[in-house]
Amino acid sequence: MVIVMKPDAPREVIEKIEKKMQSLGCQVHLSQGENYVLLGLVGDTRKINPSQIEANEYVDKLLKVQQSFKLANRTFHPEDTVIDVEGHTIGGDHVAVIAGPCSVESEEQLMTIARSVKQSGAAFLRGGAFKPRTSPYSFQGLQEEGLKLLQQAKAATGMPIVTEVMCQDTFDVVEQYGDILQIGAHNMQNFALLKRAGKSRKPILLKRGMSATVEELLMSAEYIMAEGNQQVILCERGIRTFETYTRNTLDLSAVLAIKALSHLPVIVDPSHACGKWEMVEPLSKAAVAVGAHGLMIEVHHQPESALSDGAQSLKPHKFQRLMDSIKKMG
Amino acid sequence: MVIVMKPDAPREVIEKIEKKMQSLGCQVHLSQGENYVLLGLVGDTRKINPSQIEANEYVDKLLKVQQSFKLANRTFHPEDTVIDVEGHTIGGDHVAVIAGPCSVESEEQLMTIARSVKQSGAAFLRGGAFKPRTSPYSFQGLQEEGLKLLQQAKAATGMPIVTEVMCQDTFDVVEQYGDILQIGAHNMQNFALLKRAGKSRKPILLKRGMSATVEELLMSAEYIMAEGNQQVILCERGIRTFETYTRNTLDLSAVLAIKALSHLPVIVDPSHACGKWEMVEPLSKAAVAVGAHGLMIEVHHQPESALSDGAQSLKPHKFQRLMDSIKKMG
Amino acid sequence: MVIVMKPDAPREVIEKIEKKMQSLGCQVHLSQGENYVLLGLVGDTRKINPSQIEANEYVDKLLKVQQSFKLANRTFHPEDTVIDVEGHTIGGDHVAVIAGPCSVESEEQLMTIARSVKQSGAAFLRGGAFKPRTSPYSFQGLQEEGLKLLQQAKAATGMPIVTEVMCQDTFDVVEQYGDILQIGAHNMQNFALLKRAGKSRKPILLKRGMSATVEELLMSAEYIMAEGNQQVILCERGIRTFETYTRNTLDLSAVLAIKALSHLPVIVDPSHACGKWEMVEPLSKAAVAVGAHGLMIEVHHQPESALSDGAQSLKPHKFQRLMDSIKKMG
Amino acid sequence: MVIVMKPDAPREVIEKIEKKMQSLGCQVHLSQGENYVLLGLVGDTRKINPSQIEANEYVDKLLKVQQSFKLANRTFHPEDTVIDVEGHTIGGDHVAVIAGPCSVESEEQLMTIARSVKQSGAAFLRGGAFKPRTSPYSFQGLQEEGLKLLQQAKAATGMPIVTEVMCQDTFDVVEQYGDILQIGAHNMQNFALLKRAGKSRKPILLKRGMSATVEELLMSAEYIMAEGNQQVILCERGIRTFETYTRNTLDLSAVLAIKALSHLPVIVDPSHACGKWEMVEPLSKAAVAVGAHGLMIEVHHQPESALSDGAQSLKPHKFQRLMDSIKKMG
Repeated sequence: MVIVMKPDAPREVIEKIEKKMQSLGCQVHLSQGENYVLLGLVGDTRKINPSQIEANEYVDKLLKVQQSFKLANRTFHPEDTVIDVEGHTIGGDHVAVIAGPCSVESEEQLMTIARSVKQSGAAFLRGGAFKPRTSPYSFQGLQEEGLKLLQQAKAATGMPIVTEVMCQDTFDVVEQYGDILQIGAHNMQNFALLKRAGKSRKPILLKRGMSATVEELLMSAEYIMAEGNQQVILCERGIRTFETYTRNTLDLSAVLAIKALSHLPVIVDPSHACGKWEMVEPLSKAAVAVGAHGLMIEVHHQPESALSDGAQSLKPHKFQRLMDSIKKMG
Repeated sequence: MVIVMKPDAPREVIEKIEKKMQSLGCQVHLSQGENYVLLGLVGDTRKINPSQIEANEYVDKLLKVQQSFKLANRTFHPEDTVIDVEGHTIGGDHVAVIAGPCSVESEEQLMTIARSVKQSGAAFLRGGAFKPRTSPYSFQGLQEEGLKLLQQAKAATGMPIVTEVMCQDTFDVVEQYGDILQIGAHNMQNFALLKRAGKSRKPILLKRGMSATVEELLMSAEYIMAEGNQQVILCERGIRTFETYTRNTLDLSAVLAIKALSHLPVIVDPSHACGKWEMVEPLSKAAVAVGAHGLMIEVHHQPESALSDGAQSLKPHKFQRLMDSIKKMG
Repeated sequence: MVIVMKPDAPREVIEKIEKKMQSLGCQVHLSQGENYVLLGLVGDTRKINPSQIEANEYVDKLLKVQQSFKLANRTFHPEDTVIDVEGHTIGGDHVAVIAGPCSVESEEQLMTIARSVKQSGAAFLRGGAFKPRTSPYSFQGLQEEGLKLLQQAKAATGMPIVTEVMCQDTFDVVEQYGDILQIGAHNMQNFALLKRAGKSRKPILLKRGMSATVEELLMSAEYIMAEGNQQVILCERGIRTFETYTRNTLDLSAVLAIKALSHLPVIVDPSHACGKWEMVEPLSKAAVAVGAHGLMIEVHHQPESALSDGAQSLKPHKFQRLMDSIKKMG
Repeated sequence: MVIVMKPDAPREVIEKIEKKMQSLGCQVHLSQGENYVLLGLVGDTRKINPSQIEANEYVDKLLKVQQSFKLANRTFHPEDTVIDVEGHTIGGDHVAVIAGPCSVESEEQLMTIARSVKQSGAAFLRGGAFKPRTSPYSFQGLQEEGLKLLQQAKAATGMPIVTEVMCQDTFDVVEQYGDILQIGAHNMQNFALLKRAGKSRKPILLKRGMSATVEELLMSAEYIMAEGNQQVILCERGIRTFETYTRNTLDLSAVLAIKALSHLPVIVDPSHACGKWEMVEPLSKAAVAVGAHGLMIEVHHQPESALSDGAQSLKPHKFQRLMDSIKKMG
């Protein structure tokens, strides 16, 4: 951390800050410039409350040197984390594919799609039972009934289940049925939910918030890890930009940033990012080319009747073509 | 709603969509252009699932005509809503001021600040007991102990309490002590929390998410209202932009937008918006000039020791000056 | 400037950088942390090319301490700049009002509006003769004929003319007729145009780019000033955000940021910011409340026939009401 | 175009608008809803000035149906445009690679890099002679001397030259030496420059502005094409987002959007997008995977001495590796 003092900061204020920082366990190096004074802090800066320093009227600004996340930080954990769910892994050198409908709608719908994506080579089955919707008047999911159908689909296909946890109250029931618990973009900074996820023994799939930075995503992962659950998978799913042609804007450089900053695996959800089925295959190829550890793809056999996200769902034969494309790249 | 069909859409596909829309209770008017066909829908469009229409490969796009919020919509409720808490009102023609520390830290701290802001003319006391923090390693609030101190401050000053509800698990306890329950920016789309707030009898102060549009804010208010709680106060607290000089960017035109679109009262939090105490007074005056129904201001007698948000907290004499400025405008 | 070295930076690389910086005239202070090394640079850092330092694979990042603008910087020029055009001033304690139509359309249109805004108390007349339009098929302005009409309106009313310079080729002719030369938001980083403006003896009204930071705006002012023209007026005119209810989002805290960082006067254009005439008066009051040195307002006596920006133009009697409101605040 | 009237719009106002639209050559279809009236317009809507309609106080909003660009629009020109420069093409099925230094610095520098990228398989040589810099104190390029060096490099290697045109004044000289004339992101809406480019016979490489939408980029292409120059190549080079780890955020879905909306070729500049050399190769592979028609890559043999953009320049052997990776994908 570097404290930049204003040009008119009196010597005694600077000395007071130096002593305060030293008392918190830091070493302080002062550099006297013509128009400012720099205080370079090294040592254990964790006890420093930046807000208290910034509240000093002679402090111009603070410059942060280190990332605030520790457990998620590659610096302190150089090796890649690989998540293993009943022999299916996410992380390392292969591309793990999670596929399935946006929402679980019925037994027939789910079983049809599950069998189809299994045959095309997906490793995990996705499907929403509790749905976070921006309108209270939209379909909110089949809830526990949906979870039971997912369990049935798992029994039939062997694919572990990825499904969303929306809140504390329904966490237990989702945890009981799901194999990987997804925290959605709207909940990336729902700190109570993150803490609850940190107490689970199931891996957590944490999606990046629509306007979140990579560092904020990693701070949210840190919340989970600080409670004891080290099995966190990150997911880039598009960010909000001024572009209106796509639903969101897929940020593939975030995959590279996450891999540089953290040891956690990172996957890509092109379906939500673009919102248009015709873009899903080329964006999936791009995600693989950039080095993502996996893909999460929405598939529906009848998009025009889907209760949610029909416009971005691939029909089964198009998902098959996507899987073929990915394999060719490998 | 208007459906724009692609130039090459076959007649039978168009007719099928027309019939589907009619079966859902809409009237459909077709306009045949050279390069597209428009289907104008009127009547009850609520049963339409836009995603299913967009999933049709011959549909170019949907154009939305009406806002999705109903209960919060001024069209259907032309008169201003005024919230009354034990005789203190928010809404209408006066400016309600909520003031107090970011976090409740101790009895002495809270009582000192509460007495001071009361004397300067604040109507409501703010103070956080459960704190949503981006780092798991930051101070998380005094929790129930903090709520008890707020109760004590209310007893001493007569000011109703505004305090944050962070999650379902701790909602009951916060609801017991608080008079107005605040939902923070990070939780604006925490739908489970919104539903729980909708079941409360306490007024809800709903803050705009950092990258949310005004329509999204009103949709979140709709979630609360759809559960039965019509007492919602909206709060503009700064949005994320590319500007780095301020913590966020205060969007005062949002106050005008909200007042045009909704009957709900809207207040402004300049402290979080700018993050710098020296900007709080002029931005407060601007908020009043633009027609906000209230202000929410962070005050601390010792900002350099504050456990959170010291840099944006006003000292009591500066808060007094702010209140004097506001009165002069009146 | 502070250079943050990576944890694994070899001693000889650090020493080489230290020597390089010293040879460029800086003093270097090294702080050895556990996970990084900080090099604090003081002295004359202008000769340092940040890109060359960042190209070193052992450099983690650079932290900038000082603003890059010098001539526009309040640190080196503490007193407010006041621009004087034939006795009408911008800067200091009063609010200078610039008003008129978006585009000059005809003699009758311009003279009607000019006389009206003059009577309501505007000090300067605005009107576009060369119009930057996003579509090549839109009205591009009356060009030199428009400038001649502006001259005629000035002769009739005594109001100095504010009009836009769009490019190098037409700069001379606009400079001949205009009293204050406006550089539009799209051209804020048209560096060739900024340099040409720097050679003019007329004051320049520089509008903030739609996604520009305050620092970038001041760097563009610096371009003008570095060529010799110190008469620069800055203008906040709304930034692009995710909000769609308004055309852009007026950033009033930018006025405070500019006044803190620079000695140059700063005015506000609420018409372009919101794009809706009904918001112009309240936003103007807010701009005055926050301390803007002036306002720029679009006025048209027949908005429904205006060739551009009809939706945001005030009718004369509404402009009169705005002027009355502002005066009451004074 | 669809006009949405407010609920309280009097019949005579609606009829007046209908007649006005018909007089401009449109057909109007009215749909009467409970809370609004829709006027669907088909036919030739080009003569309509949206601003005049929006200025009507009974108009709620306009909904745009068609894109405003015509010449750049794939609807009216279904086949891909391929640009041919002395036998080297951009467009179609192969990946055209443009490589070279950010700035031309010296004969030795340019010839070294030019020979190297030629040998690695680049088809075009890039190099800046006139440099748009955000600071007036930064290196502004070697100007005409730089152009002569580029000519010399072309003579030695056979690679056509891609170089930037910054302004009207220096357009002629750049046009004389360059084979493809680049318009930079800052100038995407410098309309005077676009018009001048439209009169050139050289192909124009138009970069997307930092906060521009794809539609705005295509409108700028339209400016060039409307003046007669149909040879426009578009370039995605990263947009401004809240992410700070990278310089900008590469938007690869924009490549797909452009290919869907327009017949013009589109290339990707990963170097400027990310600002970090270590990301250039994986992002290049992703750009190829998504279907870009070409790449533009910054290469420097001594990045630590580069006068600009050292941090994002690839050393020659890393550029060779990039070319090898791309070929393998092919």
